[in-house]
Amino acid sequence: MRLLPKLGRKFRRWKKFKKSPLLRKLDLLHETARKRAFLETSQDYISRLQAECDENVVTKLRGKTRDQFLYNGTFHEAVGKVLLTAQFFAMMPVRGVTAKHPSSLSFSWLHVRTCCCLLFITSTLIDLTLTIFKVLDGPISFNNIKPIIFRGCILLVCMTALNLARKWPELMMHWHDIEQDLPQYQTQKEKWRMAHTIHMVMLVGMMLSFAEHLLSMISAINYASVCNVTDDPLRNFFMLTNDEIFYFMGYSPPLALWGKLQNVYSTFIWNYMDVFVMIVSVGLAAKFRQLNDNLLKFKGMHMPPSYWSERRIQYRNICGLCGKMDNAISLITMVSFSNNLYFICVQLLRSLNQMPSVTHAVYFYFSLIFLIGRTLAVSLYAASVHDESRYSLRYLRCVPKDSWCSETKRFADEITSDLVALSGMKFFHLTRKLVLSVAGTIVTYELVLIQFHEDQNLWDCDQSNYS
Amino acid sequence: MRLLPKLGRKFRRWKKFKKSPLLRKLDLLHETARKRAFLETSQDYISRLQAECDENVVTKLRGKTRDQFLYNGTFHEAVGKVLLTAQFFAMMPVRGVTAKHPSSLSFSWLHVRTCCCLLFITSTLIDLTLTIFKVLDGPISFNNIKPIIFRGCILLVCMTALNLARKWPELMMHWHDIEQDLPQYQTQKEKWRMAHTIHMVMLVGMMLSFAEHLLSMISAINYASVCNVTDDPLRNFFMLTNDEIFYFMGYSPPLALWGKLQNVYSTFIWNYMDVFVMIVSVGLAAKFRQLNDNLLKFKGMHMPPSYWSERRIQYRNICGLCGKMDNAISLITMVSFSNNLYFICVQLLRSLNQMPSVTHAVYFYFSLIFLIGRTLAVSLYAASVHDESRYSLRYLRCVPKDSWCSETKRFADEITSDLVALSGMKFFHLTRKLVLSVAGTIVTYELVLIQFHEDQNLWDCDQSNYS
Amino acid sequence: MRLLPKLGRKFRRWKKFKKSPLLRKLDLLHETARKRAFLETSQDYISRLQAECDENVVTKLRGKTRDQFLYNGTFHEAVGKVLLTAQFFAMMPVRGVTAKHPSSLSFSWLHVRTCCCLLFITSTLIDLTLTIFKVLDGPISFNNIKPIIFRGCILLVCMTALNLARKWPELMMHWHDIEQDLPQYQTQKEKWRMAHTIHMVMLVGMMLSFAEHLLSMISAINYASVCNVTDDPLRNFFMLTNDEIFYFMGYSPPLALWGKLQNVYSTFIWNYMDVFVMIVSVGLAAKFRQLNDNLLKFKGMHMPPSYWSERRIQYRNICGLCGKMDNAISLITMVSFSNNLYFICVQLLRSLNQMPSVTHAVYFYFSLIFLIGRTLAVSLYAASVHDESRYSLRYLRCVPKDSWCSETKRFADEITSDLVALSGMKFFHLTRKLVLSVAGTIVTYELVLIQFHEDQNLWDCDQSNYS
Amino acid sequence: MRLLPKLGRKFRRWKKFKKSPLLRKLDLLHETARKRAFLETSQDYISRLQAECDENVVTKLRGKTRDQFLYNGTFHEAVGKVLLTAQFFAMMPVRGVTAKHPSSLSFSWLHVRTCCCLLFITSTLIDLTLTIFKVLDGPISFNNIKPIIFRGCILLVCMTALNLARKWPELMMHWHDIEQDLPQYQTQKEKWRMAHTIHMVMLVGMMLSFAEHLLSMISAINYASVCNVTDDPLRNFFMLTNDEIFYFMGYSPPLALWGKLQNVYSTFIWNYMDVFVMIVSVGLAAKFRQLNDNLLKFKGMHMPPSYWSERRIQYRNICGLCGKMDNAISLITMVSFSNNLYFICVQLLRSLNQMPSVTHAVYFYFSLIFLIGRTLAVSLYAASVHDESRYSLRYLRCVPKDSWCSETKRFADEITSDLVALSGMKFFHLTRKLVLSVAGTIVTYELVLIQFHEDQNLWDCDQSNYS
Repeated sequence: MRLLPKLGRKFRRWKKFKKSPLLRKLDLLHETARKRAFLETSQDYISRLQAECDENVVTKLRGKTRDQFLYNGTFHEAVGKVLLTAQFFAMMPVRGVTAKHPSSLSFSWLHVRTCCCLLFITSTLIDLTLTIFKVLDGPISFNNIKPIIFRGCILLVCMTALNLARKWPELMMHWHDIEQDLPQYQTQKEKWRMAHTIHMVMLVGMMLSFAEHLLSMISAINYASVCNVTDDPLRNFFMLTNDEIFYFMGYSPPLALWGKLQNVYSTFIWNYMDVFVMIVSVGLAAKFRQLNDNLLKFKGMHMPPSYWSERRIQYRNICGLCGKMDNAISLITMVSFSNNLYFICVQLLRSLNQMPSVTHAVYFYFSLIFLIGRTLAVSLYAASVHDESRYSLRYLRCVPKDSWCSETKRFADEITSDLVALSGMKFFHLTRKLVLSVAGTIVTYELVLIQFHEDQNLWDCDQSNYS
Repeated sequence: MRLLPKLGRKFRRWKKFKKSPLLRKLDLLHETARKRAFLETSQDYISRLQAECDENVVTKLRGKTRDQFLYNGTFHEAVGKVLLTAQFFAMMPVRGVTAKHPSSLSFSWLHVRTCCCLLFITSTLIDLTLTIFKVLDGPISFNNIKPIIFRGCILLVCMTALNLARKWPELMMHWHDIEQDLPQYQTQKEKWRMAHTIHMVMLVGMMLSFAEHLLSMISAINYASVCNVTDDPLRNFFMLTNDEIFYFMGYSPPLALWGKLQNVYSTFIWNYMDVFVMIVSVGLAAKFRQLNDNLLKFKGMHMPPSYWSERRIQYRNICGLCGKMDNAISLITMVSFSNNLYFICVQLLRSLNQMPSVTHAVYFYFSLIFLIGRTLAVSLYAASVHDESRYSLRYLRCVPKDSWCSETKRFADEITSDLVALSGMKFFHLTRKLVLSVAGTIVTYELVLIQFHEDQNLWDCDQSNYS
Repeated sequence: MRLLPKLGRKFRRWKKFKKSPLLRKLDLLHETARKRAFLETSQDYISRLQAECDENVVTKLRGKTRDQFLYNGTFHEAVGKVLLTAQFFAMMPVRGVTAKHPSSLSFSWLHVRTCCCLLFITSTLIDLTLTIFKVLDGPISFNNIKPIIFRGCILLVCMTALNLARKWPELMMHWHDIEQDLPQYQTQKEKWRMAHTIHMVMLVGMMLSFAEHLLSMISAINYASVCNVTDDPLRNFFMLTNDEIFYFMGYSPPLALWGKLQNVYSTFIWNYMDVFVMIVSVGLAAKFRQLNDNLLKFKGMHMPPSYWSERRIQYRNICGLCGKMDNAISLITMVSFSNNLYFICVQLLRSLNQMPSVTHAVYFYFSLIFLIGRTLAVSLYAASVHDESRYSLRYLRCVPKDSWCSETKRFADEITSDLVALSGMKFFHLTRKLVLSVAGTIVTYELVLIQFHEDQNLWDCDQSNYS
Repeated sequence: MRLLPKLGRKFRRWKKFKKSPLLRKLDLLHETARKRAFLETSQDYISRLQAECDENVVTKLRGKTRDQFLYNGTFHEAVGKVLLTAQFFAMMPVRGVTAKHPSSLSFSWLHVRTCCCLLFITSTLIDLTLTIFKVLDGPISFNNIKPIIFRGCILLVCMTALNLARKWPELMMHWHDIEQDLPQYQTQKEKWRMAHTIHMVMLVGMMLSFAEHLLSMISAINYASVCNVTDDPLRNFFMLTNDEIFYFMGYSPPLALWGKLQNVYSTFIWNYMDVFVMIVSVGLAAKFRQLNDNLLKFKGMHMPPSYWSERRIQYRNICGLCGKMDNAISLITMVSFSNNLYFICVQLLRSLNQMPSVTHAVYFYFSLIFLIGRTLAVSLYAASVHDESRYSLRYLRCVPKDSWCSETKRFADEITSDLVALSGMKFFHLTRKLVLSVAGTIVTYELVLIQFHEDQNLWDCDQSNYS
């Protein structure tokens, strides 16, 4: 038995020679290249570790410049400020979102952010209860239940976000591990790209949402000034925008303030849930693109099977990450989509009404276009995850005949047969095809709903369904 | 020619050496492990056989304790009490459902349970005929044919269940054979899991169904007390709930009793058909999970091709079992789904009516939510079979490069290309996507049906379509 | 260079020895079996050829007995009498449909059958023109254009059938070649099966169609006897059933006879087009089953690659045949489906009308149920082609590990990736899923159409849209 | 280490001998055939290059004859005259469309064609603005916004075409490179086929469009002569056809001329966008057919892996080209499809109106049939790209057992898993299945829209929605 290993070793050495010299040379070349790359990565890693250790000192010393230099292109880093903003509106109470490393993340029920969040949830729950009682007092229609749907969605999203916050540190660590394993970008610009997209999405989304809220206030002020129930313009305004509160209780400034705060927060969260889905999509798509960029670099070249095996495992890791994130946020995705679907139907129906004034018209059409645009943006950003995941197939199609091996075959088969995409609780997957079917559904429902529509006089001051 | 086999043998021995020593050692290790496992299984088998032989004695001696110890995790065992309960309501007249081994199962046309079942079928047939005559006497509408649909479905399901009962012993033997061949759980808790889920499904389903029936009775009593046609409250009640009988015949207590029994049995079966589909789904999904749990245990490890070949054959066996069960119960599935679809549409339409009293409202909304919840539960449990069958693919994705062989490839291809799921007579497959399309269909039909809706005064005592 | 072939030969001989003796023995066994089978087939072929040559003599001598003995299980043979029947109704004018061998088939423009066919087409064209003028004279609605659709479809099918007749001899020769190549059944019963199914489909279809025509006549006679326009009951009857003729021309017995003949022929063809699609489906499905029966015989056994290669080529041939037949008849399929869809919608709409008499009601509901049943039968028979083509996959799943080779892999991949089914001009494929979507479409259209429905008094003698 | 390459070489030589002599001979044969083919191609290439160089001289000398002789079957050549025609209508301002070689193509913002195009875009923009103001002045309905949709689509297509013109030279060079690499046709007839189809599509499309425009003018003249607002018949005519201009401005001949020109150009472009999609589809499908024709030539023969590798790469190239063209024109495809969908719905709705005169009826039904026919033609031509791309699979199914290798497997897998088709911005792919779903959508929308329809008196001279 002792001889066998020896024999086996010899045999394997002989097998090596079977390869054509050219191929062997190529393999050697690649191996060398990989080794060098590995060394570089290691050094990079060591230097980064050192950099992270010294960071506290360094940042104090050199300020912003060094920070810019240390851009590492992780999702955690890119999403930090976005989450911080959200925390001002009682969403996702995780500590350490702006820290350099995701290991600093932590969640605690006792932390002040968590308490704020719980407070807001309680407050929304009360508001929702008041709204339900108010709406059930009158006749129920597709149009009238809008405030219930709106506040119900806000509450659901807040609670899901709180639950997500508990899992966030672990998710980010998982994300970080996978990111470290991916082929790294060399330039700062490439590392900065994803963060830039995420910041732009957040900025544009919030800007438009702010503009819409302003217009809604102007429109309400205009409306309140005409239908002046009382002498106090401020009171008129609050009794209009928070009618569910003052339907049961008498007017008092603290209640009005609470109502206003509730409105502002709700509006933010209503927009933020779409933005959040977009941001996660951008992050996942960027990871697939990072892999694809590496595949592009070696497109059509003779690569050893080990190269493909490595890429396949990385691809698999991102798929796993995608599945994990989908499990975590699919309820938010579901709420975001059904919410948008319902609101578009309602607003399109309302568009048949005669507008009472120009202010109303401007607000209404801005709001409608913003709503449709936002829905489209969510759909397309979410679909980009699926698109990017399929993109790798293109590079596999260009593998030369001689390099086509069991590993490439397996890689191609896996991409072909798996459906990698965000989903609404697995009931539907977010791909480009979905956009068309959603549009078709809206048109069909609209055509049917239109038959029950009766023109409402929006200038009627007695109406209770202003919002 | 004599030399050749010898040469061939030598050649094969030489081929063995070609493998790297590491791989060979691994193979040896796995082989040893498998042999040990096999021995254990054999011993387990022998001991179980012995246990089963001695059971009568043993159980007498040690009572419950021993029984608990002998939990074997088969579907037959888990489903025994459920079927026994159903037999009290004239469903599935098979003898030996609570026996330890499926070989004790038998069906006979002469057995008392079969006779009960046939009696109930005859009784339902008469009831259905009376209903049809009563309904055809008035105007026909989407809403009015409800009693026909209800009793027709009951009759169809009963007859299918009778037919299923004839095939049940054979099905359970097949199931048992496949279960014996699967990788066994080691702990009692894992073995107990499936049975627990099945019992919970049955319990919750029946509890809610019982609650609904009670509410329906309270609501009917309330209604009958207001519209008192005669002085006898009991008579009023029965003339309301069994109007199809007393439409043609005069009131008599035996007829009333028959009507009541018929109602109770029908209500049970109406709920049981959904529960039955759920239970079979739970069983099938559990078998896939049993396989997946084994795959999870060896996830990412170097396993010999024989391991994968064995798993593939086991997977194939469960798929075959799934197909067999689908053929046997797909008519029940079909009836259950179309029935639920129709009832949800009718109830949603009725929800537009003004409720005559609080009792009615409570009963109506409880019934509607129960109906929607039940439909969703059936869909999701049935979809879990498909989900679990796809899950194995994940473990195949993690097979290391060196262990990737023709067998793993074949396994992965088979999972990818086959659609393993319960179906409604092969016209539709029960997957998660179906839920959305069913919901979409309900909304569309509802929007169209709503146009023909005229508000009925449910407090009108003359109306004949109470039920 | 001379040495090389010798060396190569030696090498191959040596390669043979590499196989394990068991496998080699198996291969030998199979080879012997195949050779024997081949010899048998050859002898069978020779004897059949002889039998065919001697047939004229033989049949004279022994009558029916010998004929029964010679059942060869070809589609040409099975479909002979069906086509002959159709030819009495001016369809598919091919000569030699009842001949033993498809080589006797021929088409000629000058043959008397072709002339009959052309005559009928001209006659239908005239009838259609009259109908169009009559219908356009009044208001056009979904319901009123029924006669145009009916006669237009008849005309289209007749012309397609004439075109098909030209290609029929070639198609049958192709079919015959493929059938000869398939694994043959050994018993007469198995050979007789397909022919039996085809004959039963034709018989049942024509019986029901005849019954429906009789009922339609009785209903028309009943109607005519009440609304007696003139004293002559025969004249009343013809003026009712052929109103499109007598709308423009005065009544005359020859015209009435022409109208009656036209009616009988149209009714036959209207039913025959569905029956024809069913028959072709039965034929194609039977060929797939013939292959599957062979696969079943060797299920789970160790077969050499040559076995699988042979089966794969046979499978491929049937797929090719399926594609050829689909190209030839897909216009008929399309017409048959859209026609049935339209008629079901119209009849369901009419079912809302109050029936004027019991005769009408019986005729109407028999007609409606027959229509729905026929549509369902066409769908299911056509879908069986697809089902059978997928069935082969099951046997491939059971190929043992050692026999799994490149050929089996290729076979499985081809079955998985190809969609083998009849189609409606490639716009839709006839699978079981189609049935559900057709049913869904009918329900949706019906719900929308119902809104335009106004109850017509069918007892009104002045109405012109009786048919 | 020096010995190894030598050893390796020897080993490979020995490996060659392992092949059976027959196979080796076949390989040799194929190799020789390929080499000869290559040589021929090279010579062909050289001669073509020479021919192209000498062209200017040659054509002057021999005129048309030589030109005919030099037909090279490229898309650039085939599409030249079509693009030239389009340029007369301010579309696609690229220079050099009729040149022999695509390298002569160029785009410049300063060229006169580009200026014309920009001028027309500006003019359309003004027209669209006027139309919007005119339409918004009255009530808005599904029917009334037709002029906005019409002019908006024209504008969008013009701008997309201008953008496409900038990319056209590069696209054509890419196309040319791929065409050079494809297996070449030998006969002039085969080379001429694609160009012929493209010219026929353009000719028939433009003829019908011209006929429709003439009919529209006759109908308008007829209408204007009855509703003579003024004494000047020309003025009446222009005030009818260009009501959006004279709604705001007084009548003046230059404005009328501008309106007329705008109408003619718009009508051309409205038809041309469909024709353009068809032409590109014909081109792409022809390239796939060119490859398929080569595969057909060697169908079922023993070909070396290199043959399949080459074909696979060519197939891949055409797929890449298809993707590139799709990216470039998918906005046009999208506009073309949604435009057609909308117009068919509107026209079908209008078909319920009573036609005021025979001229109107002729124009209307010609226009409707033309519209439906054009939509169907676009769908089917576009679907042919997908059909042809799948067709290659058939030849791969016939590869003999011995020639089945890793390359054929890879080729087959790629065809199976990729969806090669033109698309509407990736939201939907243009396959034959789309036709049915578009038809279903039209029927459904029509059935719903019909409910809002009120018969308009088209003979009412005051109406403003004539067009």
